[in-house]
Amino acid sequence: MSHVRHFKDFTWNDVPVLAYKEGGPYRGVTRQILFEGAHSLPAQWRYFEVEPGGHSTLERHEHIHHVVILRGMGRCLVGDEVYDIGEHDLVDVPPLHWHQFRAAEDSPLGFLCLVAAARDRPQLPAEADLVALRRNPAVAAFIRP
Amino acid sequence: MSHVRHFKDFTWNDVPVLAYKEGGPYRGVTRQILFEGAHSLPAQWRYFEVEPGGHSTLERHEHIHHVVILRGMGRCLVGDEVYDIGEHDLVDVPPLHWHQFRAAEDSPLGFLCLVAAARDRPQLPAEADLVALRRNPAVAAFIRP
Repeated sequence: MSHVRHFKDFTWNDVPVLAYKEGGPYRGVTRQILFEGAHSLPAQWRYFEVEPGGHSTLERHEHIHHVVILRGMGRCLVGDEVYDIGEHDLVDVPPLHWHQFRAAEDSPLGFLCLVAAARDRPQLPAEADLVALRRNPAVAAFIRP
Repeated sequence: MSHVRHFKDFTWNDVPVLAYKEGGPYRGVTRQILFEGAHSLPAQWRYFEVEPGGHSTLERHEHIHHVVILRGMGRCLVGDEVYDIGEHDLVDVPPLHWHQFRAAEDSPLGFLCLVAAARDRPQLPAEADLVALRRNPAVAAFIRP
């Protein structure tokens, strides 16, 4: 078995392109699991790609994300702040911080995202969470619940 | 504290550029630790950059590496095979596989490398290991012990 999987057009040999999630409030996002298996770390290393104008789910959870942007540009919410993000920027999402990634209207947003293999399920915002998030006008304008 | 660290010229805000190792048989390699700290995973996510013509140490260990090439091109040894590698290719290094990364003569080789936070120390090849490795002419021509 080869120990190298070659890259082409943001896909890799022997890495299937999956749906981001089963349904849910998101738009135009795919998922690829880059490393997993017998000799794996206790972490899962994935590549997500958000199409122009698309976004991931607004959610939070106990487990953390480590993110490296691999392609394109967009913005993300982490906690109560909205950040511009571009190629090779680093993003960390601490426990229970609301977060959402959005691609620019004219650019995809592709990013590597690392999580612990054993992790809790994401929580979606309740109405009270949305009220709290929307107290910040920049966040109110950004989020797509 | 910002949850985003911006990228510029293959360095990042608040990420120091370190020596690859304290001495040892390598040439022209730097190291940056991208994610580590209070909310870290049980894994360490690093960026290494090998200058044109440079190489990492020929070594092996029980712990595994997951690698994504971020910049440039070169070749790597994993086990008993030498692979061409370029931007965004994936490399996995299973337990106790000899490995070495070399940048092309006219290109740097920058890569993300993930390891378990708790891991064993690298082993250098003994003379008998080098004899065994050199049975394959492609490996013999490639390695820089």
